[in-house]
Amino acid sequence: MNFASDNTAGIAPPILDAIARANDGSALAYGDDATTAGVERRLSELFERAVAAFLVPTGTAANALAIAQMTPPWGAVLCHAECHLAVDECGAPEFFGGGLKLVGLPGEACKLRAETVATALARRPWGGPHHVTAAALTLTQATEAGTIYRPDELRSLCEIAHQHGLAVHVDGARFGNALVRMNVTAAEATWKAGVDVMTFGATKAGALAAEAVVFFDPARSGAMSERRKRGGHLVSKHRFLAAQFAAFLADDLWLALARHANRMADRLADGLVRAGLRPVWPVEANEVFVALPPAADQRLKAAGASYYRWSTSSLPQGLTVEAADVVRLVTSFATTADEVDRFVAVAADA
Amino acid sequence: MNFASDNTAGIAPPILDAIARANDGSALAYGDDATTAGVERRLSELFERAVAAFLVPTGTAANALAIAQMTPPWGAVLCHAECHLAVDECGAPEFFGGGLKLVGLPGEACKLRAETVATALARRPWGGPHHVTAAALTLTQATEAGTIYRPDELRSLCEIAHQHGLAVHVDGARFGNALVRMNVTAAEATWKAGVDVMTFGATKAGALAAEAVVFFDPARSGAMSERRKRGGHLVSKHRFLAAQFAAFLADDLWLALARHANRMADRLADGLVRAGLRPVWPVEANEVFVALPPAADQRLKAAGASYYRWSTSSLPQGLTVEAADVVRLVTSFATTADEVDRFVAVAADA
Amino acid sequence: MNFASDNTAGIAPPILDAIARANDGSALAYGDDATTAGVERRLSELFERAVAAFLVPTGTAANALAIAQMTPPWGAVLCHAECHLAVDECGAPEFFGGGLKLVGLPGEACKLRAETVATALARRPWGGPHHVTAAALTLTQATEAGTIYRPDELRSLCEIAHQHGLAVHVDGARFGNALVRMNVTAAEATWKAGVDVMTFGATKAGALAAEAVVFFDPARSGAMSERRKRGGHLVSKHRFLAAQFAAFLADDLWLALARHANRMADRLADGLVRAGLRPVWPVEANEVFVALPPAADQRLKAAGASYYRWSTSSLPQGLTVEAADVVRLVTSFATTADEVDRFVAVAADA
Amino acid sequence: MNFASDNTAGIAPPILDAIARANDGSALAYGDDATTAGVERRLSELFERAVAAFLVPTGTAANALAIAQMTPPWGAVLCHAECHLAVDECGAPEFFGGGLKLVGLPGEACKLRAETVATALARRPWGGPHHVTAAALTLTQATEAGTIYRPDELRSLCEIAHQHGLAVHVDGARFGNALVRMNVTAAEATWKAGVDVMTFGATKAGALAAEAVVFFDPARSGAMSERRKRGGHLVSKHRFLAAQFAAFLADDLWLALARHANRMADRLADGLVRAGLRPVWPVEANEVFVALPPAADQRLKAAGASYYRWSTSSLPQGLTVEAADVVRLVTSFATTADEVDRFVAVAADA
Repeated sequence: MNFASDNTAGIAPPILDAIARANDGSALAYGDDATTAGVERRLSELFERAVAAFLVPTGTAANALAIAQMTPPWGAVLCHAECHLAVDECGAPEFFGGGLKLVGLPGEACKLRAETVATALARRPWGGPHHVTAAALTLTQATEAGTIYRPDELRSLCEIAHQHGLAVHVDGARFGNALVRMNVTAAEATWKAGVDVMTFGATKAGALAAEAVVFFDPARSGAMSERRKRGGHLVSKHRFLAAQFAAFLADDLWLALARHANRMADRLADGLVRAGLRPVWPVEANEVFVALPPAADQRLKAAGASYYRWSTSSLPQGLTVEAADVVRLVTSFATTADEVDRFVAVAADA
Repeated sequence: MNFASDNTAGIAPPILDAIARANDGSALAYGDDATTAGVERRLSELFERAVAAFLVPTGTAANALAIAQMTPPWGAVLCHAECHLAVDECGAPEFFGGGLKLVGLPGEACKLRAETVATALARRPWGGPHHVTAAALTLTQATEAGTIYRPDELRSLCEIAHQHGLAVHVDGARFGNALVRMNVTAAEATWKAGVDVMTFGATKAGALAAEAVVFFDPARSGAMSERRKRGGHLVSKHRFLAAQFAAFLADDLWLALARHANRMADRLADGLVRAGLRPVWPVEANEVFVALPPAADQRLKAAGASYYRWSTSSLPQGLTVEAADVVRLVTSFATTADEVDRFVAVAADA
Repeated sequence: MNFASDNTAGIAPPILDAIARANDGSALAYGDDATTAGVERRLSELFERAVAAFLVPTGTAANALAIAQMTPPWGAVLCHAECHLAVDECGAPEFFGGGLKLVGLPGEACKLRAETVATALARRPWGGPHHVTAAALTLTQATEAGTIYRPDELRSLCEIAHQHGLAVHVDGARFGNALVRMNVTAAEATWKAGVDVMTFGATKAGALAAEAVVFFDPARSGAMSERRKRGGHLVSKHRFLAAQFAAFLADDLWLALARHANRMADRLADGLVRAGLRPVWPVEANEVFVALPPAADQRLKAAGASYYRWSTSSLPQGLTVEAADVVRLVTSFATTADEVDRFVAVAADA
Repeated sequence: MNFASDNTAGIAPPILDAIARANDGSALAYGDDATTAGVERRLSELFERAVAAFLVPTGTAANALAIAQMTPPWGAVLCHAECHLAVDECGAPEFFGGGLKLVGLPGEACKLRAETVATALARRPWGGPHHVTAAALTLTQATEAGTIYRPDELRSLCEIAHQHGLAVHVDGARFGNALVRMNVTAAEATWKAGVDVMTFGATKAGALAAEAVVFFDPARSGAMSERRKRGGHLVSKHRFLAAQFAAFLADDLWLALARHANRMADRLADGLVRAGLRPVWPVEANEVFVALPPAADQRLKAAGASYYRWSTSSLPQGLTVEAADVVRLVTSFATTADEVDRFVAVAADA
């Protein structure tokens, strides 16, 4: 009953197989191989336009490199105050960005509203030279609360951002989970709504370690090769990074894996609701947040369930759950219905 | 006939198997797993003392993190003017080190002599506050010329460095290749000779992507966890990094792989000598540098051999080979005797 | 009627005289002169303990260098969300601090309360390696709202900070203005209350360009010389920086200048109150913030008065003044009673 | 007999007067004052084209900001191996440039030859992403050896640089001293020869603390305001920085001051030659380098003369003076003929 993180899962079998298959013969290092070229082509197909893509081994690297590429050191990145990038990456964006500033904004369910961004851009003094210049907006899709931005929400946010000259970045560590919930294409959920650059995550979704920074306008990817190398993120045996991504995208494996994870989250949420434990936010991806009564918590821990407490200031208005009581339950491609059902049973057994 | 780099080889089969075996069940992310703990224990055994080890996916990351940890931003790192870290990492040490300075020194066959370091430390004004402070010395083992530092050479270099308060780092991307050539232990080739911190490379030697920064005095590894995370080098599904290293070290696989690569380099050198093509430097690890006549070069290229030209100012005194004529031939765990023999045959066939 | 900033004033005559007097003969550069040594001694006397002091030409430099010295790049600096350092220095602390993070906290009248800091330190996940480490607390004295921290308030804040291992910095751009309002010594308002390092500002108070970073524990000033030089803040003809500071401190000139500025602020506040315009925060230093009716604003602008609108979220609870309506009026050593009276007359003339 | 540095001189009287005169009334801070606007106009006149100028208090700041503006963090700056910027600024260019790399090249008398630069650009692998990108060339005028670049030498160097896409920066801490030696205009010695950006120094030449970064193509000065502020180099009472520069340029004061300093250097060199002490490099600005016999050195020290030993690898070919024996003698606007004559007399008195 492992609901601690989608990072605790292993490698999806087709991706592991692809690594083994790629281990045939020699290949030029540093991305000058055929598998890498194939992934770039495949990403352009998927997104229905020529994109520039840069593979790296971690999400932290992908996010920090993307942000640094769009923001000068004297720039500011608007973001949700509780987003992963601002809270859980030990200052990686500031490091890669030469000391840029993250400006955290509030928003229920870890979602930013266009009005919140508009107000921040209008009110605060920007530029100057006394003030940092608002340069980018970053959104997490699916969010840290397991909620998702619909294309029209993205569109409104991107419009505001672009009006003020900000680039829009999406942290898509769980992009697949968001996408399969909506009846839209990858293009509609990104550049067609105005997104400029994206961290397309495969690791949480089933890879060993593979993330892509995707620029929807290749002209904006200027010095990314140098940034990646200099940051130590140009993997030498690059074909194995590419092989993971290729397998991830082949035959829509990534969507199938995400669908499974979401289904498990739905099943978990349904079970919890039946047990009188209603999630604090709508369950739209592969995460369920719920206020767990102490007794249930103890039973679950005793039964070997693993999950983390979650501190947040983004609860729905009116909901006054003690922060200490909310736990985060994450499902993955590897979660089984049996695990979910056992969890629900232990939680419910009052 | 791929002699371009040991990076063009794939994954050694036992390491690939270990990755597959590690894909069983879930494990805590970010290094809080049993495989990672095991690797740390194993490294302490290997080095015959308690070490602090940090796994990362690339050699650039390992080197840059190690250097940054030992050197303040206003510090200088003494190194060979042609070392990989100074020339081939796009400024990664400067980036991770907050703008530190690499000070390149000359030395035949890419080796620094103790006297050269002593003179640099004595002559130049250091510290001040006008001048940067000499803070670290970095050595490559085996060197970029495929030569190696013997323990007594290391000892002399470390003594000079320590006398002036410098820490000593070894870039051991090809540490195994150096070690198997000398009849010494891993401890004798490192901390017993005075080395403080080391990049222990597994990637070139047979892993998918796995390097360890090893601190021989754990007290000097202070903020490495934060540096690694912030640099985007804390791999989330860390067990797979650890599994690679565990397999690499198990049953002395790493030494066996290195021995094979060295044997292939020796065979190549022997063949070339018989063909009248004497390597410009002694062949002590898995690299052979030779001045290739244009005709031989053309024949080899036509036959599909791959290798790189090598620009250097470290030729032996008196040797006036045109820089443009030296090529680098790298062997790996995957190089076959047949490949070597074919290469020699084509090179020799005048 | 210049109330735009204390930066618009010139140089207090005794300080200008001191610059001229220092222009006699030659002196070693970079601070190796007698005047500089004298300032260090004088500061130690003033603060009743041996301090380490570093003179620099700007407050931005002093603040950023002090903060960077106390905080690692992966550290966080707790501060008031509206403090100068966070809002008006174009990211200088992030730049000098290698990408550190400022964590803004709320507080009425731009003052942090000990409980606010305690809660932030208790609630938020710190360190990790996923999270930045809380490393410093910075307070502005007098604050950006012209209010001041009393010694017992400082003591409570420093206690909380020290309990959690944070260093405490005070941005004392207007330290004199705060000090003369309280019946305490410089020592009581700083290290005796727990302050570790301070930006002691002379520029706004009457110098041409001179600020001192003062470490109350010289052992914590380690690499400040290198940081200052490397930041371009080691003024070569340093005696002129020192001469300004010497004159500033001689015969308590600094206190006299601050007293005058405060008196002018009091006179201004009194006049405005009589005109029905009550300052939004208590006037405790040399700044008056008031909600100016549009008509008064127009009359004042027409009469040539200069001042800035002030955007804030730190208004007293219950006060719902439109942000756009608050203006900041700053007095200085050079402000005259006549200027103040004319301002009040024009403001009042309805 | 102070020949230690032109930094040991005070303020030229007309500049001191200008500071006093500027202390009349209030003025907007941060450069929004009339004096600053006047300096910008005057610089455009002087250089015979519209320039963008940024005043800062130190030469280190001016150099580092200019370099950082022209070079990305993954860029390299070619320079003479012994230039001030590379050796004496504690890594300021690396700090401001986000970890850029200085690549030191050799050259007699601290001058770079066009061929040396051409060879460096042709031979070394640049860009990649493995290698840093050659982005700027910096030259010191007058050089650290007191020699100067003639316009045709500058032209050759700039041509090579521009052919390879490098910007050219001149560190003009002693620009006036170079200019008055040649019969050319400020424009001919800079942009007409191809220089893109320059540190125009007034401090060593007679100011308290004032340097200008001058961009000959204002379009290349993009984010300099932000860089300056963020670096802590936007002086708040900016009118006093501007007043220094205005007085420096008025009535060609700067040229008169430089002419005097050069004349004193010539007189010193002539005297030393008569005493059998020939300078090691031609005396072209305000510095004299000479190998001082131990006895003369002792007599001079005993007589109270101050100067520094100078370590160099740029001696003329064939000259094998012991590095330890060369001393640097710097004259300034404040040096008197009497001082020079006494120095020569003591040096000569065998």
